[in-house]
Amino acid sequence: MRISQYFLSTLKETPQEAQIVSHRLMLRTGMIAQTTAGIYTWLPLGLAVLKKIEQIVREEQNRAGSLEVLMPTIQPADLWIKSGRYNDYGKEMLRITDRHEREMLYGPTAEEVITDIFARYIKSYKDLPKRLYNIQWKFRDEIRPRFGVMRGREFLMKDNYSFNLDYESARASYQAMLDAYVRTFARMGLTAIPVRADSGAIGGTLSHEFQILAETGESQVYYDEAYETLAPGEITLEKLQSLYAAADEMHKPEDCPVPLEKLKTARGIEVGHVFYFGTKYSIPLGAYVMGPDGKQIPVEMGSYGIGVSRLVGALIEANHDEKGIIWPESVAPFKVGILNLNIKDEATNKAAEDLYHKLLNQDVEVLYDDRDQAPGAKFADMDLIGLPWQIIVGPRGVAQGRCEVKNRKTDERFDLSYDDAIQKIRKA
Amino acid sequence: MRISQYFLSTLKETPQEAQIVSHRLMLRTGMIAQTTAGIYTWLPLGLAVLKKIEQIVREEQNRAGSLEVLMPTIQPADLWIKSGRYNDYGKEMLRITDRHEREMLYGPTAEEVITDIFARYIKSYKDLPKRLYNIQWKFRDEIRPRFGVMRGREFLMKDNYSFNLDYESARASYQAMLDAYVRTFARMGLTAIPVRADSGAIGGTLSHEFQILAETGESQVYYDEAYETLAPGEITLEKLQSLYAAADEMHKPEDCPVPLEKLKTARGIEVGHVFYFGTKYSIPLGAYVMGPDGKQIPVEMGSYGIGVSRLVGALIEANHDEKGIIWPESVAPFKVGILNLNIKDEATNKAAEDLYHKLLNQDVEVLYDDRDQAPGAKFADMDLIGLPWQIIVGPRGVAQGRCEVKNRKTDERFDLSYDDAIQKIRKA
Repeated sequence: MRISQYFLSTLKETPQEAQIVSHRLMLRTGMIAQTTAGIYTWLPLGLAVLKKIEQIVREEQNRAGSLEVLMPTIQPADLWIKSGRYNDYGKEMLRITDRHEREMLYGPTAEEVITDIFARYIKSYKDLPKRLYNIQWKFRDEIRPRFGVMRGREFLMKDNYSFNLDYESARASYQAMLDAYVRTFARMGLTAIPVRADSGAIGGTLSHEFQILAETGESQVYYDEAYETLAPGEITLEKLQSLYAAADEMHKPEDCPVPLEKLKTARGIEVGHVFYFGTKYSIPLGAYVMGPDGKQIPVEMGSYGIGVSRLVGALIEANHDEKGIIWPESVAPFKVGILNLNIKDEATNKAAEDLYHKLLNQDVEVLYDDRDQAPGAKFADMDLIGLPWQIIVGPRGVAQGRCEVKNRKTDERFDLSYDDAIQKIRKA
Repeated sequence: MRISQYFLSTLKETPQEAQIVSHRLMLRTGMIAQTTAGIYTWLPLGLAVLKKIEQIVREEQNRAGSLEVLMPTIQPADLWIKSGRYNDYGKEMLRITDRHEREMLYGPTAEEVITDIFARYIKSYKDLPKRLYNIQWKFRDEIRPRFGVMRGREFLMKDNYSFNLDYESARASYQAMLDAYVRTFARMGLTAIPVRADSGAIGGTLSHEFQILAETGESQVYYDEAYETLAPGEITLEKLQSLYAAADEMHKPEDCPVPLEKLKTARGIEVGHVFYFGTKYSIPLGAYVMGPDGKQIPVEMGSYGIGVSRLVGALIEANHDEKGIIWPESVAPFKVGILNLNIKDEATNKAAEDLYHKLLNQDVEVLYDDRDQAPGAKFADMDLIGLPWQIIVGPRGVAQGRCEVKNRKTDERFDLSYDDAIQKIRKA
């Protein structure tokens, strides 16, 4: 993509309204534009990242044997009246009256809608287990939206719902989602700690939040230092129930079994939340299956959320420096940026254009800065938007048939021929 | 995908509430489930088709040099008050009051939101032309939702907005979208006729609807018989302005320049709508750029919609027989279905499983009917859901190392070795 034909609008100044670094950088890089309080438009650069994250989440949900569906954003109130929680969400639920005076709402979550569908379609234990998920926009009417996409009102969530015949297999579904979450966050270069959580309006007896440790986190997290040496494969439900980790609303110092010298604490950003709630929804919404003995059994359920749009902010909180964002390669909007330092110099232009076309032909995602701007502005913009690699093409290097490849994260620089530069980027 | 692990729920009976064939077939195949009037959940089979269509639309928008953004579903009323059309939509607009008593709405279209963004980010004629699009859920509170996804309330729309410096280049944007639409529909095997249309609540002086001819269409379309021999490349704005074609609300027999013997008429389904409306939104919303002479110029705009979710229904209207749906290959949920006629026969099972794995390994999208059901039910279901190809694996053929490949559309059948069957499907 040529920047001259792209929608890139970077700001030098820090926007006044943004209190945390991810919000500032998302506005400064033109990833998002606020449309109204807590509601954003995703501009091309931001949307590219959002889609990368969404696709990683989707692939890991599919790998775990879940089926993708798509529920509507607008839900009828009657399902929530049936489940008994129409009032639980209070003012955070965006309530709507349609032209026929029917009560509707913008879904903040979808336990009721999916349980209703299950009840209508699945009739036998032979069709279990089932896990159905969707990646859809949700709405929570936060009283004070802030921190950009980290606590917006309209947000993109992956929500998965598991249906099992009994408690043991429901635990297996819960474990499968724990495994999927660890893999999902690892693919984004994140370590997320699952901590015991309050199950809140979702309800149920078992609940964990996945917290990314970051200074700007909203929660204070307390955890056994043993967490720091836990390998990904060791995150089992048994282990989580024996090792202590809790966010502030669940942490009671007087009840904490971990001696103080082994208790770590840090700020955390919640990026996922998993729940087991048994038959809380299946009984009122009639989600029963015929068991092996011919009797009707209410299904055991759980639900599993990942804040897809929130992850964009969380990733920036975890990956930035004073110059801007440093995207992990798996979620970067482009893999590499080409900086043409003098578009008026014929040889430089030719070298940069050649590199651009060769990379495109090899299916490398490349952003080409072909603007008529000073080198300093181009350096600053490219560091700000944080693509993993840069290829700097200037008249001095071009005179010798060479360019500079820079790693945004390490600041390593390599003086290379054009072909070697392409090879280096391709193999990186 | 194994049907035993999928979410496939077919109905033998025709649902009472469905008046048209696409709605009936979408319910009978379990593509969608109604969540409330005019609001649907997309089940895995339906979502697979929706995503294929969405991706074709996206690729053709990108090919035409448009940039993808993503606007929120919920919009603030103040932008619509500025543009002067807050009342134009009447009761079709779903109006919402948030917890702070601010007036909001669920976007039925997004001219205001995108013009506001343009006004804030683009300042110079040098950044023109720009075309920004998104594929996002919209809401129109239809008084009587019906025909399934064809006239639902929550629907998926691709909406593109063009920004140009003057009328001539605005016409070029309009033409680029006409070309993109012709290509988009052609890739789905559809011929859509662009007819003169009323610009309605969007406004403007130039507007065309793309109509697919189908018996169940909601509009009556009148067109010069010359349309029937028009090659795709000949659909230019000049040609559209010289050749007559209009839907009923624009067709006035007394003014029609086409002699009756050359005037064709048919029912049509609207799948796209393009508008040129000049400065109708740019002036009230302040979308001005600095022109070459330093003066501020309001940008010339157009907008271009495709009903993505509606196309699922329209495609079924255009592609079905008495047995069910006949998917064009480009939008089929799977390319091929394998019917294992006897899962209790070891040799049949082995042959079907082998075929399944070999096709998967070659990245063919395959649905494998591994259920313990009678052959008749499997034949009926596979014809109903309408995958382009079927591979029928039964004990009699397996005894000779052969299977039957069937083309759903032509009903051609081929008695082939397993390897030849795989080759045939791959190359099809």
